[in-house]
Amino acid sequence: MEKTDVLVIGGSAAGVVAAATGKFFHPDKDVLMVRKEKTAMIPCGIPYIFSTVGSTEKNIFPPAMAEKAGVRIKYDEVLSINKDEKTAVTADGTNIRYEKLIIATGSLPKKPRSLPGVDLEGVFTIPKNKEYLDSIQQYLKDKKKVIVVGGGFIGVEVSDELNKAGLEVTLVEILPNILNLAFDKELAVRAEELLKERGIKVVTGTGVKEMIGQGQKVTGVQLTNGTSLDTDAVILSVGYAPNTSLAKEAGLKLNDCGFIVVDEYMRTPTPDIMAVGDCAEKRDYITRKTTGVMLASTACAEGRIAGMNLYKLSALKTFSGTIAIYSTALDNHGFGTAGLTEAQAIAEGFDVVSGTFEAPDRHPGCLPGMHNQLVKLIVAKDSGVVIGGEVIGGSSTGELTNILGFIIQNKMNLNAVLTAQIGTQPMLTASPAVYPLTKAAENAMKKIMNL
Amino acid sequence: MEKTDVLVIGGSAAGVVAAATGKFFHPDKDVLMVRKEKTAMIPCGIPYIFSTVGSTEKNIFPPAMAEKAGVRIKYDEVLSINKDEKTAVTADGTNIRYEKLIIATGSLPKKPRSLPGVDLEGVFTIPKNKEYLDSIQQYLKDKKKVIVVGGGFIGVEVSDELNKAGLEVTLVEILPNILNLAFDKELAVRAEELLKERGIKVVTGTGVKEMIGQGQKVTGVQLTNGTSLDTDAVILSVGYAPNTSLAKEAGLKLNDCGFIVVDEYMRTPTPDIMAVGDCAEKRDYITRKTTGVMLASTACAEGRIAGMNLYKLSALKTFSGTIAIYSTALDNHGFGTAGLTEAQAIAEGFDVVSGTFEAPDRHPGCLPGMHNQLVKLIVAKDSGVVIGGEVIGGSSTGELTNILGFIIQNKMNLNAVLTAQIGTQPMLTASPAVYPLTKAAENAMKKIMNL
Repeated sequence: MEKTDVLVIGGSAAGVVAAATGKFFHPDKDVLMVRKEKTAMIPCGIPYIFSTVGSTEKNIFPPAMAEKAGVRIKYDEVLSINKDEKTAVTADGTNIRYEKLIIATGSLPKKPRSLPGVDLEGVFTIPKNKEYLDSIQQYLKDKKKVIVVGGGFIGVEVSDELNKAGLEVTLVEILPNILNLAFDKELAVRAEELLKERGIKVVTGTGVKEMIGQGQKVTGVQLTNGTSLDTDAVILSVGYAPNTSLAKEAGLKLNDCGFIVVDEYMRTPTPDIMAVGDCAEKRDYITRKTTGVMLASTACAEGRIAGMNLYKLSALKTFSGTIAIYSTALDNHGFGTAGLTEAQAIAEGFDVVSGTFEAPDRHPGCLPGMHNQLVKLIVAKDSGVVIGGEVIGGSSTGELTNILGFIIQNKMNLNAVLTAQIGTQPMLTASPAVYPLTKAAENAMKKIMNL
Repeated sequence: MEKTDVLVIGGSAAGVVAAATGKFFHPDKDVLMVRKEKTAMIPCGIPYIFSTVGSTEKNIFPPAMAEKAGVRIKYDEVLSINKDEKTAVTADGTNIRYEKLIIATGSLPKKPRSLPGVDLEGVFTIPKNKEYLDSIQQYLKDKKKVIVVGGGFIGVEVSDELNKAGLEVTLVEILPNILNLAFDKELAVRAEELLKERGIKVVTGTGVKEMIGQGQKVTGVQLTNGTSLDTDAVILSVGYAPNTSLAKEAGLKLNDCGFIVVDEYMRTPTPDIMAVGDCAEKRDYITRKTTGVMLASTACAEGRIAGMNLYKLSALKTFSGTIAIYSTALDNHGFGTAGLTEAQAIAEGFDVVSGTFEAPDRHPGCLPGMHNQLVKLIVAKDSGVVIGGEVIGGSSTGELTNILGFIIQNKMNLNAVLTAQIGTQPMLTASPAVYPLTKAAENAMKKIMNL
């Protein structure tokens, strides 16, 4: 029987951050992380293995962060948990007794069993698994055409990278627009146009009916609109399901969507067991509904909160719900989102106004590296509180989207945004006179004031 | 006698924004802006005329923003204000009656009269004046060497641009480090090293004793440390003084440093007269002392607040003091600061801890465009409230510095920063597992907890 104070199961973003943070703030405790993969992937770096990064070898999530923090790492797989005896058994037969347990088993890509031909050779998903990803690259080596199913951020990034790698790419999205969860239509179409300009075929408003094969291999896709497309391979990017079979078998409480139930301290209802990352239940920061949005950044925030609340709770260190702050890049264009889109807010029953503004992200605009920057704010009409924002811009889009995250997180209203001081610099930001965030707030305020 | 509802004197950043915002939120009012310069300069773009932008022609602050908002513009100079009769007289003899007056007369570069040789030909300052700036460029055309006096942001940017333009540049700073107001020593030396690598001579800890001339022309500079340097020209970048002679002559109240006294609504003590921008009094957001820090971004925030509070006050729309958020770029390196440096905080009597962290701003770090990103947070020990932050990074430094601004503005404490959700993306940001802002907060928290 091995013993540890804190056992962390899973060694991707959430697990590593939970373990490292736990050790950082409890240096006297022994923290043991059990990780299945010798070489885990940087989750959000995966699409880039196909061209920009070039290989899985260059996209490895180093355990160094946990090791440096003083976490012990065991490369093994936990097969069962006994929550009453507070023990876990691994594949190599080790029985580990823990004081506190953090489950960070992540998620697995969905592969719809009901879809005919889904098991044909050449039909792939995008899991966080090095060997599997290597096998995709190997398979695509001498191929010409690929169909990507699902126009979320991963589908879009994978499409763009495969296109850069020289493949003929068709992206199929069942909804009227790609990136539908992230952007209102008028912004989503810009991403769509950009993909098309870059040589990717985009088919929207159409689902996949079946995969067509010759022998064992996929050779085409039949769409629900009647068309059929030839292809050498298919990549399914239709979402991820929480990987919670271990937790379920251990008798932990799951919610209706299969996530491990947790509270704002990331505690499960079972004493001394926490869950973090893709496998843990999430609530939307604004709607308070449970949500299926999985992000490495959210996972890290949860891991950090679990690590800080391991032995002593702090009412200030809680996870207040997923704001869903994320961004992507297509060439030198950035696309970012935080909180609710206008369409989502309306569907949820919010009475909202929006404000949009676009200006160059350098001043004067002739400076090198200039990119137009568009900001849209979604504002609850009664309180003036910002509940969502969207950005299209250049290389600073990621951090500008994070500003929107801080605005939403701090429940800032339009007055606070309008009086906010912004730092500006010719080579680094938009002009202070037409800073798109501020001007978007003005446009929203004008609507509220009926001017 | 001409009449207007709102008269704005001055048409640079603060004036244009005050006028445009005033009209935007009071569409039924007539807003008249009197601007001396047909072609005003983008203030923070001025250093870049020497190389990257290339000429003043390409750095013009367009009045379009005010015009588009419906502001009337008169190209003229206001010579006097009669605050009792609420009238102003311009150079062309027009007498304008106003209901509300906003003074935005800006600032002028300091040229120390006591410095021997300061009036020699070839000794320049950096005013926001197109003709003067053109004359500098003309003078430097066939010159080889230039000395820049003053290592603040403008001095540093001008030095870098003149170096890029092919001149031999020596930057002289009287304090032990350049950028002393913005950065603690350990960050300032990095900027200094970078300037040296780029071929600029940097001389610190030494003042200028006198300018040496042959005939009318400057040929050298005598430093207080005894050395003398040959030069073809000198650029003085030793600060700016508020341009408030018009206000003073009109009997408006000035503070001890010559700024027009204003409250948080940007109102002067004289009824119906506001002042905004470099000419208006500022208080530091944290220390509450009056401050001389002048920034175009602050000026725009003040202009916006004046415009919104012109006719009806809103207790929510006030200027709460200068946070001093600013940044600069040297090649692909960004340097940003917000709030107090650690040295300033200690000098002010704050009991502080700091936390610093550095990591790549892409993940994996092999992605193109990667730059290391360093964040330092300065935290009041008792409350955990963040009172300052510094950044060195790549192209997203400007917006990351703005995140620090929002953190300070919202009086966020370390718990709020540690639990904050961050959006991350391989091509646009640091990794969520080692996001420098969050990790810097962890390092500061560890000190507070005595771990």
